[in-house]
Amino acid sequence: MSELRGPIEIVGTGLVGTSIALALTDAGLECVLSDESSDNLRTATGLGAGRVATPEDRPTMVVVSVPPAHLGRVIRQALERTADQQAVVTDVGSIKSGPLAEIADAPGLDRYVGGHPMAGSERSGPLAASAALFDGRPWAITPHAASNQDALEMVEALVRRCGGVPVRLTPLEHDAAVARTSHVPHLLAALAAGRLADAPTGHLTLSGQGVRDVTRVAAGDPALYGQIVSANADQVINLLGEVRARLDEVIAAIAAGDREALEALLAEGVAGTKAIPGKHGGPVLPMRSVFVSVPDHPGELARLFADAGASGVNIEDVRIDHDPGRDTGLVELLVEESRAEHLLVSLESRGWVTHR
Amino acid sequence: MSELRGPIEIVGTGLVGTSIALALTDAGLECVLSDESSDNLRTATGLGAGRVATPEDRPTMVVVSVPPAHLGRVIRQALERTADQQAVVTDVGSIKSGPLAEIADAPGLDRYVGGHPMAGSERSGPLAASAALFDGRPWAITPHAASNQDALEMVEALVRRCGGVPVRLTPLEHDAAVARTSHVPHLLAALAAGRLADAPTGHLTLSGQGVRDVTRVAAGDPALYGQIVSANADQVINLLGEVRARLDEVIAAIAAGDREALEALLAEGVAGTKAIPGKHGGPVLPMRSVFVSVPDHPGELARLFADAGASGVNIEDVRIDHDPGRDTGLVELLVEESRAEHLLVSLESRGWVTHR
Repeated sequence: MSELRGPIEIVGTGLVGTSIALALTDAGLECVLSDESSDNLRTATGLGAGRVATPEDRPTMVVVSVPPAHLGRVIRQALERTADQQAVVTDVGSIKSGPLAEIADAPGLDRYVGGHPMAGSERSGPLAASAALFDGRPWAITPHAASNQDALEMVEALVRRCGGVPVRLTPLEHDAAVARTSHVPHLLAALAAGRLADAPTGHLTLSGQGVRDVTRVAAGDPALYGQIVSANADQVINLLGEVRARLDEVIAAIAAGDREALEALLAEGVAGTKAIPGKHGGPVLPMRSVFVSVPDHPGELARLFADAGASGVNIEDVRIDHDPGRDTGLVELLVEESRAEHLLVSLESRGWVTHR
Repeated sequence: MSELRGPIEIVGTGLVGTSIALALTDAGLECVLSDESSDNLRTATGLGAGRVATPEDRPTMVVVSVPPAHLGRVIRQALERTADQQAVVTDVGSIKSGPLAEIADAPGLDRYVGGHPMAGSERSGPLAASAALFDGRPWAITPHAASNQDALEMVEALVRRCGGVPVRLTPLEHDAAVARTSHVPHLLAALAAGRLADAPTGHLTLSGQGVRDVTRVAAGDPALYGQIVSANADQVINLLGEVRARLDEVIAAIAAGDREALEALLAEGVAGTKAIPGKHGGPVLPMRSVFVSVPDHPGELARLFADAGASGVNIEDVRIDHDPGRDTGLVELLVEESRAEHLLVSLESRGWVTHR
C-alpha cells in the first residue's frame, strides 16, 4: 500500500500546495486541486499542477496546505469525506501539536500523519510555485500515537517523490525543534534589527556584513511570523525564558567586568554554530574563506567563477561584501581548508587580487 | 600640511597594521615598522610592508595598531617621542572613548586623532594582511575636542590613501554606533547560537538558511569579542537594557496571545533591516532574488555565472543554500527588481532550472 497511486488531492493551492502538485504531476501522478480562492485554483491548473477536483473523485491521499488557522477544520473534513476509500491525509503546516489537538476526536484519525517541508520562499502564492521547491530539503514527518503504518509509509513516499528528505519526529519534538532553529532565531534577529530602526543619523554607516547577516530574516512579514510564533507559543516561551536568563547573565558579566563569565557565554555560542549539521547532512569539514577583490560590473563574477572552476576546487559557499562608496566588491569563497591554498595560487596566477 | 609625506611609522604589525603599511608602501610612501614581537616584524618586512624603525627616524605620522588594552600607553609614548617634529598620531582601535580618557592629560594631545577601519578578517597576524583590506570600507575618524585641523586632514588623507572611506564621528558617537551595529548583534547571535548547543538529538536537522545567517558571527573568537565588548561596556549595557525590555514585551505578547503587540515588535525589526544603508552608500534599490538549481560539483557555478554574465544583468549578491541529503544546490542571485525577469528568461533559455 506504500506505493503512491493517483488521484492525489491537494487542498489549498498556494506556494507549497501548488509546488507539491507540480512535483507529483512531473512524477506521473494525477493531481486534483481544490481551493476556496478561484483565482489561485485557476492559476495552479494553468501552471499544469493538475485539474480541479470534483465530488466524484476518490483520492487515495489528501494533502492539506491551508493557512495555520484552518488546518484542524480542513484535516477533519478530509478524513470524513474519504472514509469510504480510507484515504491517507497529511498536511504541510509549520506547527504540529495544536492542529493535532483540535482533531483528537476525529473519526479515521489513524489515517492522518502530519508533515512540514522546510522549504519556502520570500514570495507566496501559486505563481511562485516550483516543482523543484523541495529538492534536497528536510521535510518533517510527524506521526502521532495512533497513526497507522501504511499511512506513514505513504506520506514518506510522497515526500520522496517531491524530492524532499523525510525526517521523522513526534509532533511535540517538531514544534520544539522549529522553535529552536527558526522561531527564536527570528525573534532575536528582530530584536537586533529593532535597535537599528531608531539609530541616530550616521551611526549605521558603520554597518558591516555581520549585522546584515544577523538581521536578514527579520525582514520577513510580521503578520505571517506573528501567526507562526503564536501557534507555537509554549515552546517559544520556554526557549525565550532561557534566552532571557542568559541575557541577564551577559549584562551582569559586562557590568561587573567579569571577562571569564562573558567569554563562557560567547563560547556557548561558538559551540552552537558548530552543532548545526553540515552540508548534505554529513559532518562539518574544516572550511576556509578565500577573499578576492572583484570589480562590480557584469561579467566579472563569471570570470572569477570560470577561473575558480578551472582550478578544480569546489566552492561550498559564496558571499559578496557590499562596499559602501566604491565600485569594487570583496567576494568570499568558502572551500575545504585543504583546497584553499591551491585555489589562492590558481586565482593569483590568473591575475586576481586575493586577500591573504 | 595635509599632503602625506614619509616616513610613516606603524606600531604593531598584526593584520591591520601590516595591511596599512602595505597599502601605503604601494602608494609610494616610506613606512617604518615597530613591534614587540620580532616574529611579526620579520614577517611584515618580509612581505614588503616597510623597514624596521630606528631611533633616528623622524616619522611625520605614527599609526598605533596594538591590542585594545595597550592603546592608551602606546599612543601617549608616540606623542611624547615625536614632540620635536610635531608628528600626527592616530590608531585603529575598535573602541575610542576609553583610550582617549586614558591619555586626556598627555602633552601634544592636539596631534592625536583616533581612527577605526571597518575591515578585518576571521584570520589575524601579518600573514593575513593585504594592501586591499580597506578597499571601499568605511573607516571611522574620531577627532576629539582638542584635535587640530592639520592632524584631522592628515588622518583623512591616510585613510583615502589606504582605499578607505572616511566617516567622521565623535569618539562617543563611534562607540555608540559600533555597540549598535556590531557588539549587540554579535551578542544576540551568540544567544541564538547558544540555544543550539544543547539541542536534543535530531532537532537541528531542521536547520535552514535563516538560523545559519543569524548565528554566523557567533563563531568568532570569544576572547577577542569579550575584550571588545568589555571595553565598550557602557554603550553595550545601554542597548542591552533596551533589548531586555523588548524581550520582556515579546514574551508577554506571546503569553497573552496579543498578536497586535507581537506584530508591532516584528515590524520594528523590518524597519531596522530597511535602515541599513545600501550598497555603495547609496539608497537601497528594490531587489529580487532569482533561485536556480545547480549541481554540486566543480565548474557548475562557473557555468551559471558565465550564463548570468552573458545576460548583462549585474549580480548584487549570491547565496548558496546547503541542502542536506542531496548533491544539488539552490543558488540565490540577488538582482535589481527591474532586471530579474530578463535574467530568469535568459537562464532558462540556456537550460537552467529556475524556481519561479
